[in-house]
Amino acid sequence: MSSLFLRTLREDPADAEVTSHRLLVRAGYIRRAAPGIYSWLPLGLKVLAKVEQIVREEMDAIGGQEVHFPALLPKEPYEATGRWVEYGPNIFRLQDRKGADYLLAPTHEELFTLLVKDLYSSYKDLPLALYQIQTKYRDEARPRAGLIRGREFIMKDAYSFDVDDAGLERSYDLQRQAYQRIFDRLGLEYVIVRAMSGAMGGSRSEEFLHPTAIGEDTFVRSPGGYAANVEAVTTPVPEPLPFDGLPPAEVLDTPDSPTIDTLVDAANRLHPREDRAWTAADTLKNVVLALVHPDGTREVIAVGLPGDREVDLKRLQAAVEPAEVEAATEEDLKGRPELVKGYIGPAVLGPNGAPRETDDDGRPVEGTGAIRYLLDPRVVPGTAWITGADEHGKHVFNLVAGRDFTADGTIEAAEVRAGDPAPDGSGPLELARGIEIGHIFALGRKYAEALDLKVLDQNGKAVVVTMGSYGIGITRALAALAEANNDENGLVWPMQVAPAHVHVLATGKGQEIFATAERLARELEAVGVEVLYDDRQKVSAGVKFADSELLGVPLSLVVGRGLADGVVEIRQRATGEREEVAPDLAVARLRELVDEALAG
Amino acid sequence: MSSLFLRTLREDPADAEVTSHRLLVRAGYIRRAAPGIYSWLPLGLKVLAKVEQIVREEMDAIGGQEVHFPALLPKEPYEATGRWVEYGPNIFRLQDRKGADYLLAPTHEELFTLLVKDLYSSYKDLPLALYQIQTKYRDEARPRAGLIRGREFIMKDAYSFDVDDAGLERSYDLQRQAYQRIFDRLGLEYVIVRAMSGAMGGSRSEEFLHPTAIGEDTFVRSPGGYAANVEAVTTPVPEPLPFDGLPPAEVLDTPDSPTIDTLVDAANRLHPREDRAWTAADTLKNVVLALVHPDGTREVIAVGLPGDREVDLKRLQAAVEPAEVEAATEEDLKGRPELVKGYIGPAVLGPNGAPRETDDDGRPVEGTGAIRYLLDPRVVPGTAWITGADEHGKHVFNLVAGRDFTADGTIEAAEVRAGDPAPDGSGPLELARGIEIGHIFALGRKYAEALDLKVLDQNGKAVVVTMGSYGIGITRALAALAEANNDENGLVWPMQVAPAHVHVLATGKGQEIFATAERLARELEAVGVEVLYDDRQKVSAGVKFADSELLGVPLSLVVGRGLADGVVEIRQRATGEREEVAPDLAVARLRELVDEALAG
Repeated sequence: MSSLFLRTLREDPADAEVTSHRLLVRAGYIRRAAPGIYSWLPLGLKVLAKVEQIVREEMDAIGGQEVHFPALLPKEPYEATGRWVEYGPNIFRLQDRKGADYLLAPTHEELFTLLVKDLYSSYKDLPLALYQIQTKYRDEARPRAGLIRGREFIMKDAYSFDVDDAGLERSYDLQRQAYQRIFDRLGLEYVIVRAMSGAMGGSRSEEFLHPTAIGEDTFVRSPGGYAANVEAVTTPVPEPLPFDGLPPAEVLDTPDSPTIDTLVDAANRLHPREDRAWTAADTLKNVVLALVHPDGTREVIAVGLPGDREVDLKRLQAAVEPAEVEAATEEDLKGRPELVKGYIGPAVLGPNGAPRETDDDGRPVEGTGAIRYLLDPRVVPGTAWITGADEHGKHVFNLVAGRDFTADGTIEAAEVRAGDPAPDGSGPLELARGIEIGHIFALGRKYAEALDLKVLDQNGKAVVVTMGSYGIGITRALAALAEANNDENGLVWPMQVAPAHVHVLATGKGQEIFATAERLARELEAVGVEVLYDDRQKVSAGVKFADSELLGVPLSLVVGRGLADGVVEIRQRATGEREEVAPDLAVARLRELVDEALAG
Repeated sequence: MSSLFLRTLREDPADAEVTSHRLLVRAGYIRRAAPGIYSWLPLGLKVLAKVEQIVREEMDAIGGQEVHFPALLPKEPYEATGRWVEYGPNIFRLQDRKGADYLLAPTHEELFTLLVKDLYSSYKDLPLALYQIQTKYRDEARPRAGLIRGREFIMKDAYSFDVDDAGLERSYDLQRQAYQRIFDRLGLEYVIVRAMSGAMGGSRSEEFLHPTAIGEDTFVRSPGGYAANVEAVTTPVPEPLPFDGLPPAEVLDTPDSPTIDTLVDAANRLHPREDRAWTAADTLKNVVLALVHPDGTREVIAVGLPGDREVDLKRLQAAVEPAEVEAATEEDLKGRPELVKGYIGPAVLGPNGAPRETDDDGRPVEGTGAIRYLLDPRVVPGTAWITGADEHGKHVFNLVAGRDFTADGTIEAAEVRAGDPAPDGSGPLELARGIEIGHIFALGRKYAEALDLKVLDQNGKAVVVTMGSYGIGITRALAALAEANNDENGLVWPMQVAPAHVHVLATGKGQEIFATAERLARELEAVGVEVLYDDRQKVSAGVKFADSELLGVPLSLVVGRGLADGVVEIRQRATGEREEVAPDLAVARLRELVDEALAG
């Protein structure tokens, strides 16, 4: 350590929001180079290499073959699949000196597809699984939490190629099992949740989430085993109710009631019903929003949902991808006098409102007439609502879905709440937060079709290949490990990924202390134990202990004052356990402890 | 090989100009993704990893510490050192979603300097050597020759930090020795030549060139051991000659003599001298060129050199860096009627021509008056020349440098020719071509000064750190290895970097052949020999042999028809040597051959 390129910091970095970021910087594993862009120092690089190696071994174990693609790629393949446009501002784009368009690749579906097309042509070549461990780029709007949401990061991305759906299913399951082994070996807790496939296309899709309060992703679980990313939760659709006997809709005065709270209050005060009080759940709230489509066009829409639920923007965003959701602006509302703020009702929305112009083929033209109207799935035919009457100070009561209004479709935009029923009937949902550390997708034929990847099947017929795409955020998994393994004094690495197995500390001044420490360090290395040796001469024992706890090597061997009494001390970072042993027994004992830890 | 992601090609790729490119593509090691940008297939990645590992080991052996920097970097540090501008169109630039300027780093001097500044503050921390193996980017005007001049490539870049010049000297020498060991271990022939430091700044600079006819760099060697990149060759400056007794300059008619050939002819025909004929060496040619400075300004200049030498644009380019040389255009010459094409003489150039305007401080203003005039170092005072008289059909004879004209300075722009004297007096130069595989620079304090990297010295005084920068083109070295090791049938890898040690080929149809081949492959792996096993069932022996020679694994073990007679065959790819051995002796014999080859 006297020559190791390392400086530990006593102070937290100013920009660190989460523990892993704080400790990885303080312990000298990483340094920030730009927002969301980090440099790796020697100890950090050692941990990174170990995480990569575990991933590599498990990919190889399922027959994955490692390749390596460029990060700088031409636009054309991404244009062919539509992703050049779909990614919008989320990718880094640039031009070369000749003005040709390039991007820094966020993932490599296109290139893998084209390479397989280049090399393979028969069903006999499949199944095939390829992977790479490579630097990826995303121009995140809000890079945060250190390595957890970066703009340059390392990913393992793997791709499977199969001739039919059953093959894809097998490939997907193999990857899924490999992911379980990887995270098990890393000692990283995870939950497998259903996910949306988003810009990737495809059908089956699951995320591996590491549960932690600082996670960016919210997920749900039920007692019966359902688990999903909150974006992927589908609302159980109630049965439609009969219209028979429902009272007619009626417009009533509800002065000064532009919000759900004031509306419920006005309804109960001015128009009480007999059996029970009105609640927010009786109201239908219509929220106006804007979508920015990938081609840059802006569309104003309305989302209708029960008044006791908020719009969850992340769920809405996932539902409308590749469009981006924004709040509607004054500009958006200009020229739409039918939208009376606080009193917007279905009558002016979607199919209930002004008819859209039709084109020569008789199809409605987007952007003319009433704006698009999408309903929460709970608003089934036969449900009755208090909702806006499109007139200041007035609401309509007993407006019945399917009888008095319809919509352009449904949308999963309402917040999911603890206690909501799981869509598969497996019980009430609980909510938790996690970091996405892995994501597996059964892509299907989207990319192969766009890029014309076909092979001849057993009958000599050209068939489109079906693909899967499987990613692990290597740098993010490392951050999750740091997030999960620390205490108030610093990091506490699991043995599998620690920058060294044993931290040898020479604490004290005697020549003999340093000589013994050095001898033991060498002996440990000779038996295959990875050692970090603190040989600094003019550094106090206190500073050495503090640094050691900050760095988080799982075992330490303290050679200090006890040496005079014929003992050295072994400390376990995780438990704080200490044991004194004779110097000559220390190496064997440490080798044993390392082996135990590596065996898990 | 029945499942290896590999397809060998019988045809050369259309864009392959050189052998290494042709064979690496045909043998399925790499594939082109875009101009100068390549994807690595499984076998290519194995070779790459071995080259990287040798470099890593030798860097570690001299105390180098591995780190890893981002490729995507903000403009600011590069602006501070001037390189953001100096690199001109040779780097990839981009903006993030907020409009901030970034580049894809071509080298990392700035970031290393800033990181050391961040961590270190005392002379006690030095010397320090850091390195990384990382992806680099250069927007080459003409990417060519496959991996040899790419736009995305892998480099090992190392940086040394010392408190004084003697320390830098030691660090430089350590790196130089490590480079020698690296190229020795790779089995890659090299010549160490003096080099220009170019955009890097700094003083001492040497290149490691791999001699090959397809090299882009021309270098010179003398019998006495001088070696230099042709750009770095300095012309021995002759002693000035006395003016005494030289005849006066005289303008003579030389009709229709706008070129050196026609001029020599006209001079000998119309104005012969007694003792010997005029030759091109008696003429002084003035070549008008344009420089584009990093700030975008364009400057027209004239270079004067003996008429028997051409301007070497690469030498001129190196001499004027960071400016870029271009041919002068009609536009450049407009408004300069004094430049009479074919008859330009010193009288209208530089200090001899129209005076430059002066600014308020009395300093001449660039771009006003006569253009800048730079002379070849051979044009010393007292040398007499036939040169343009700035009038159509006229030349001036006996125009004496230093007496009749001067210049703004000298420039190394003339071609170097075989037989020219070495600048250190070590004999006549011979010329050869090579690929730059390594480059070491004693940078000095340029970067530390620009970025304010100081440490406290032994007296507590802040001193600027002195640095070195040391690069190896990993992907380029791999291409050079392929270029140096092949024959008409394919690649011939040295054992140290081969994708496998032994290629086991099962040739024939019997069950026993495949069973034996597989058993021997396993036994080889069990004793640490890396095996590529051709287990393909329906592929002929001929195709297997052809593929094996193309792939270039150093040893092969053929299990075929001979098995019935109790023998298998060992072939050496490089020599073509074959030997038959009993199957049970094959493993030991191959292990022995592998060990011999690895021992070098």
